Amino acid sequence: MAEFAIGIDGGGTSCRAAVTDRMGKVLGSGKAGAANILSDLENSLVNIVASARQALSDAGLDSELAHTLPAVVGTAGANVGDYGKHVEKALPFANVHVVTDAMIALQGALGDADGIIGAFGTGSVYNARRNGMIWGVGGWGFVVGDQASGARLGRDLLERLLLAHDKVHPPSPITEKIMAEFEGDPERVVEFAHVSKPKDFARYAPMVFEYADKGDVVAVGIVKTAVNAIAESLDTLLWPECPSICLLGGLSKAYHPWLNPRHKTLLTEPKGDVLRGAVELAAKLLQKDLGSTR
Amino acid sequence: MAEFAIGIDGGGTSCRAAVTDRMGKVLGSGKAGAANILSDLENSLVNIVASARQALSDAGLDSELAHTLPAVVGTAGANVGDYGKHVEKALPFANVHVVTDAMIALQGALGDADGIIGAFGTGSVYNARRNGMIWGVGGWGFVVGDQASGARLGRDLLERLLLAHDKVHPPSPITEKIMAEFEGDPERVVEFAHVSKPKDFARYAPMVFEYADKGDVVAVGIVKTAVNAIAESLDTLLWPECPSICLLGGLSKAYHPWLNPRHKTLLTEPKGDVLRGAVELAAKLLQKDLGSTR
Repeated sequence: MAEFAIGIDGGGTSCRAAVTDRMGKVLGSGKAGAANILSDLENSLVNIVASARQALSDAGLDSELAHTLPAVVGTAGANVGDYGKHVEKALPFANVHVVTDAMIALQGALGDADGIIGAFGTGSVYNARRNGMIWGVGGWGFVVGDQASGARLGRDLLERLLLAHDKVHPPSPITEKIMAEFEGDPERVVEFAHVSKPKDFARYAPMVFEYADKGDVVAVGIVKTAVNAIAESLDTLLWPECPSICLLGGLSKAYHPWLNPRHKTLLTEPKGDVLRGAVELAAKLLQKDLGSTR
Repeated sequence: MAEFAIGIDGGGTSCRAAVTDRMGKVLGSGKAGAANILSDLENSLVNIVASARQALSDAGLDSELAHTLPAVVGTAGANVGDYGKHVEKALPFANVHVVTDAMIALQGALGDADGIIGAFGTGSVYNARRNGMIWGVGGWGFVVGDQASGARLGRDLLERLLLAHDKVHPPSPITEKIMAEFEGDPERVVEFAHVSKPKDFARYAPMVFEYADKGDVVAVGIVKTAVNAIAESLDTLLWPECPSICLLGGLSKAYHPWLNPRHKTLLTEPKGDVLRGAVELAAKLLQKDLGSTR
């Protein structure tokens, strides 16, 4: 019967793993490259395993133990087609559950309780758990979704920059500052927009909040548009007895003061992060002795 | 002294050329591949020359005459940095003026009169001529501009499709129809959005108008957002005595009924197309005997 299990946050930037005992106590942790199972399955598998082995070494255990231990991996795309099952079959753990990134984020933030989480980083996505059922909205990416994401805030800023340059809208301190960074040349803004990835646009998000908090009209407009999108999405998931809403991700604190009062009263601090969620689910797997079959 | 001149519309899809006499009478026309001088200068030059030679042959003239004739080329990017001058130096005509695509579009639509043009195809851009001075707004491309373009209408449709799928917004006949085309799978919508170019999004634009004209709530919302952007841009250019507004491009007719009344009263049919504009400017060049210097 296995004594330990491994919880893994297979993220789009890096994989983080932790070895846990039956009580959820972390004994060691590890980190490796990104997991993007939809776009690069092979490297995702390599990185998931590498982070687990590192966590075992960090815990003072033989990294070869990976083959004898149960694991929970949370990763985006686990619910798309057969991707989750493919990953489960390909990983070398004794027993492995591959779940969505939303599942480990929910577990980390809410523990076993019901509630809603909204995650705001480069992207934006919302998930809810009600009577054990999980469902979500958003997270459809930069081009046609993620209305409250950092990438979208940055894209909106550049769009409004050009409208101010054209004198279609009035300028404001933030449009003047950023336009100066592009040396006043709209062609350079366009070029930036065409070669940039979502994370490049998202770099402007903290500045949008900084200026919005000072009352900059353009920045306030951008934030209010995003906050309206947040309100619509939260209302879609919300039910009368919903005990709490947790905001996660790099922009969550910046959004707090802007939220609608009916959502603000439900705000609670997340109990733990996504890796904590993976660890808790791994400990549960151990408690069920699912790890002892091999 | 040259008897003929060549007018060329160096467009992003194709180059079209026409041989004209001093009176602006077209004697022959030709067509070749695209001109995108900012992204592919070499092929742009080849295609501009090829269209001119074809126009000369079509007029029953020796295509080698190109070297002895004056020409006007209208093309996007002519006003960016030194691109226009580079193109003028590299082209083999006896004398060549490289002007913006806006310049030939204005000349084609308005002749020598003052007024405003708005062009609505895959992109969207506005230009005005007042007392001979030309200035414009918009045209900054799909990612951070072109708010009334076909590409933007299509992108907005897909965004609202996903919001309806998530039940954040109510569905409508157009969201249900297009979602069915994606077999009800939001992942397929996202995939389409990530691999598509502006022209691919723009293919949805006629359908947005078709449904908006029938009162589809989502389609009406998309069109009204675009029409609001049009109104803001036209108001930026408009002056009290402005005699006319011409809408050009594949979507111009579809926008007509939706326009703000204060703009609608100024609408006039364009006198001619962009190639006509290039031809008129080429004939003017001939009248000034600028073609006779070599």
